[in-house]
Amino acid sequence: MTNKDARTPASTQNPTETSEATGAGKSIGWHKAYVEGSRPDLRVPVRQVHLTNGQSVTLYDTSGPYTDPLVDTDVRRGLAPVRENWIVARGDTEEYAGRPVRPEDDGIKHTSPRGGLRNLDAVFPGRPRLPRRGRAGKAVTQLAYARRGEITPEMEFVAIRENVSPEVVREEIAAGRAVLPANVNHPETEPMIIGKRFLVKVNANIGNSAVTSSIEEEVEKMTWATRWGADTVMDLSTGRNIHTTREWVLRNSPVPIGTVPLYQALEKVDGKAEELTWEIYKDTVVEQAEQGVDYMTVHAGVRLAYVPLTANRKTGIVSRGGSIMAAWCLAHHKESFLYEHFEELCEILAAYDVTYSLGDGLRPGSIADANDEAQFAELRTLGELNRIAKRHDVQTMIEGPGHVPMHKIKENIDLQQEICEEAPFYTLGPLTTDVAPAYDHITSGIGAAMIAWWGTAMLCYVTPKEHLGLPNRDDVKTGVITYKIAAHAADLAKGHPGAQEWDDALSDARFEFRWEDQFNLALDPDTAREFHDETLPAEPAKTAHFCSMCGPKFCSMKISQDIRREHGGSRTEIEEGMAQKSREFAEAGNRVYLPIAD
Amino acid sequence: MTNKDARTPASTQNPTETSEATGAGKSIGWHKAYVEGSRPDLRVPVRQVHLTNGQSVTLYDTSGPYTDPLVDTDVRRGLAPVRENWIVARGDTEEYAGRPVRPEDDGIKHTSPRGGLRNLDAVFPGRPRLPRRGRAGKAVTQLAYARRGEITPEMEFVAIRENVSPEVVREEIAAGRAVLPANVNHPETEPMIIGKRFLVKVNANIGNSAVTSSIEEEVEKMTWATRWGADTVMDLSTGRNIHTTREWVLRNSPVPIGTVPLYQALEKVDGKAEELTWEIYKDTVVEQAEQGVDYMTVHAGVRLAYVPLTANRKTGIVSRGGSIMAAWCLAHHKESFLYEHFEELCEILAAYDVTYSLGDGLRPGSIADANDEAQFAELRTLGELNRIAKRHDVQTMIEGPGHVPMHKIKENIDLQQEICEEAPFYTLGPLTTDVAPAYDHITSGIGAAMIAWWGTAMLCYVTPKEHLGLPNRDDVKTGVITYKIAAHAADLAKGHPGAQEWDDALSDARFEFRWEDQFNLALDPDTAREFHDETLPAEPAKTAHFCSMCGPKFCSMKISQDIRREHGGSRTEIEEGMAQKSREFAEAGNRVYLPIAD
Repeated sequence: MTNKDARTPASTQNPTETSEATGAGKSIGWHKAYVEGSRPDLRVPVRQVHLTNGQSVTLYDTSGPYTDPLVDTDVRRGLAPVRENWIVARGDTEEYAGRPVRPEDDGIKHTSPRGGLRNLDAVFPGRPRLPRRGRAGKAVTQLAYARRGEITPEMEFVAIRENVSPEVVREEIAAGRAVLPANVNHPETEPMIIGKRFLVKVNANIGNSAVTSSIEEEVEKMTWATRWGADTVMDLSTGRNIHTTREWVLRNSPVPIGTVPLYQALEKVDGKAEELTWEIYKDTVVEQAEQGVDYMTVHAGVRLAYVPLTANRKTGIVSRGGSIMAAWCLAHHKESFLYEHFEELCEILAAYDVTYSLGDGLRPGSIADANDEAQFAELRTLGELNRIAKRHDVQTMIEGPGHVPMHKIKENIDLQQEICEEAPFYTLGPLTTDVAPAYDHITSGIGAAMIAWWGTAMLCYVTPKEHLGLPNRDDVKTGVITYKIAAHAADLAKGHPGAQEWDDALSDARFEFRWEDQFNLALDPDTAREFHDETLPAEPAKTAHFCSMCGPKFCSMKISQDIRREHGGSRTEIEEGMAQKSREFAEAGNRVYLPIAD
Repeated sequence: MTNKDARTPASTQNPTETSEATGAGKSIGWHKAYVEGSRPDLRVPVRQVHLTNGQSVTLYDTSGPYTDPLVDTDVRRGLAPVRENWIVARGDTEEYAGRPVRPEDDGIKHTSPRGGLRNLDAVFPGRPRLPRRGRAGKAVTQLAYARRGEITPEMEFVAIRENVSPEVVREEIAAGRAVLPANVNHPETEPMIIGKRFLVKVNANIGNSAVTSSIEEEVEKMTWATRWGADTVMDLSTGRNIHTTREWVLRNSPVPIGTVPLYQALEKVDGKAEELTWEIYKDTVVEQAEQGVDYMTVHAGVRLAYVPLTANRKTGIVSRGGSIMAAWCLAHHKESFLYEHFEELCEILAAYDVTYSLGDGLRPGSIADANDEAQFAELRTLGELNRIAKRHDVQTMIEGPGHVPMHKIKENIDLQQEICEEAPFYTLGPLTTDVAPAYDHITSGIGAAMIAWWGTAMLCYVTPKEHLGLPNRDDVKTGVITYKIAAHAADLAKGHPGAQEWDDALSDARFEFRWEDQFNLALDPDTAREFHDETLPAEPAKTAHFCSMCGPKFCSMKISQDIRREHGGSRTEIEEGMAQKSREFAEAGNRVYLPIAD
């Protein structure tokens, strides 16, 4: 491939485009474009912002074909399988009949008069297509390819997206410092990478629950979340129609989808943790792997011996998966079946290239419980499981907390990086205080920015509804935007190449009173425009050299510009002008600066 | 005084109360109470939260008499002058005729047919009371008292508020490491302290502008901001009625009020920076000091020689005061009149105990400009001015940036503390990225939490409208809550005594499903309750052992509680139970843990 035309996350040059999506997009100041790689079917989407000064800025784009007016999307048909040719061409996977889909996969009892899955067939005519898995003896994970020195189209895709060489991508994956979640049964994904050498990523959780919400809502939340910048989406559904919801989400998702298979397994035993078995769990993992889930949270680090360590905690075990496994361990007085069958699980995940997200089931749920014995005991086990997963060529990332006060955050990332041999850290926040329910996107955005600066590769968002209820559409957007801020602040602090170009472009627009450019470059153009217009709605205000904050007389930027205009445009000119005035001043002679220093 | 009954910021004991404000307050789960000091007129307000388990939690309270149902407040009468007796009793100040108030103080031309100040007289019958100032030869600042070893009632008040000994308060003020802003003409304030040994404070800016808003709105914003936790308020009005607005705000404010006198001085010369003079400025400072302004931002560090240092900046000079002074310096090719007359200014401020807030007129306005030569040149001058102010017994704090990426934040506080001899740092954010207009409360909340952890004493809030427009009521609330989060997260990280008790109380309530207690302990009870009720509005849900996020089957806290119930309440009991099971298990014998570590 040639990578010379690849873009930085925020470049002011024009990308090489194979097609340009104009129309609606263009009229609002930006449009979808593509950077072509070494082959015509390798097209990396970007968001191109057109500035009023004739320049343009190219930004990373997670929104998928939905923002391309040339693509006709239809949720009942699903997205085009952009990776299918690459997967097939490798020749190391095979189609097979697959596990039969059963009514109970959707939480429907055998005795139920209604068959939930006929609906699914109706929704996706011709589906399900046959699932695919690695042929016997073939290692089909991106980790295996990377270790063998192969640069896959997926790796080239992310190299263009991140503006690094494909070799850097391959090296980071091979070393286990990055993962490229890409199940062979989810060919609809646009490849992305999670690792500390790359842009910090953001995950958004969606999911219906036993209490509320519908399938359509969840698909809508997924596209909505990626529209605002979510790099991956986790479907945490726990209620009815769990299989069907996931099928809809997967077939329509341009980003990797993560799940927690334990939730569905628990549904299959009517919520009775003690009735869980390895067989039910394994069956659920296969079911989800065949559907195309790209990464799975597995709470295999919650060992029997660690449960008592949580007894004196303020908030016990707050991870759902962690509490389910703890309940199972105590009910049976046995070691966790996930821990005991971990090698077998690795073999299953390897066959589909499902990435592990090793769950922190014992993460702290309050400031008081941060960095305690239970948490770090589990982390050491995750380090052990990480090494086993790697032996099986399974890509692996490690989940992190939770609730942690600022002065205890760094210890988390430092320990994780050491114990888990620099495997990507994927943290929930952390929340830096417990006292602000309804604002936990902010309490956690603070911790997220810090831990990402120090090396966390992906941040799991927290919405304003955390601890209180299920996020709606607005909450999802607020959560994603807050976490994009944290991620970008970390990219800046890490000195990620090109990260500051975006800030610079926006600040230039601000200083030059190019209001429309300021809006179009904003993480959330709609809200920025709306807030400006609240006080100065008229169209001329969009070109005014002031705003409602200070009015025309007090605008510091205007005064600053006037200074430059009057005293020359560059520092040298100002200094020369000053020097001249200074000589005149000295010649005039009788004025001495007040001797004020002591 | 006896301080033994003083409260921590979040204690679970009951305060000694001289009166209890019940009624409306009590019915919603909290009420206003007072902790009495060594004299009956020294009553420190607290917010007492009543928990459903019979305990109560006492929180720091900034809301003033407005939340005390026993006090009948009236904006036309103003608040009771709680400090008046203390000031008079010291015998070192005198009333005097004061500077005549002129129509142009309100931006009204001499030729205007309407006299703006008759309105003011009508609003405050009998006002203005005569202004007060230090008698000749008397040093009347809290710094002077502290240096002489005197513990004033103001110091005792803040000692109770902060749960430290009065001697600690005196020492910190005497050393210049803390300020207690308390103009002798603002007897309505409830004393508070700003310094790194104390709770991190939050300032909220209000102010009308030439473009929009009214006096009533500004008073309402002030009480609204303190209702949510603002520790001080800056009135940054720039439009008409500037004197009258300030009078209303001061007479009704329970918190210290700050201003930037330069704004009003500029109004007096019709916005023409070059027409400013020291005489006009001085006259404005006296005008505001007589009204009772507690601290004033003075941009005396913007020296002529520094202006060219900003020429190559991305966003030039973004401080309004800084740009005005830079324009003046360049127009006249003279050193700043503020710098030249600084000693005289100190004498004026000392006479009223007005605290300096030495402005950072050259703060960076974009990520690109952070920590540059212009910024740090000015900081060194602020260090010089700080030493001069101290010689005059004037309390002093130092303002800080601005826009700074995370990895450059610590250098700001470290340099400031070194150069300014640990004078309190008072920072605006800093904003950690430029790309999120409409969310700058969040971009800056991240930086604010970090810099406060590292030693900043007070944070100036940023609202969602930053860079876009004037904040409305909702924006003020969002800004204050966001900054209270940053401040409290920093208190936790600094290990401030008692700070974590608040988090612990809330987390206990969360773990025990005491929903009402969770709401009442929240920084914003109203929104927390509203978010919960969005999905589970019915009253029984307030005592339910789950919420809408996971539903009853998946609630990790419920499972965690079940585990404790079944396996004993304490770690010891669980361990004993486990040991017993373990013996049975060993006796059964045939099951070995998978040897998984390598």
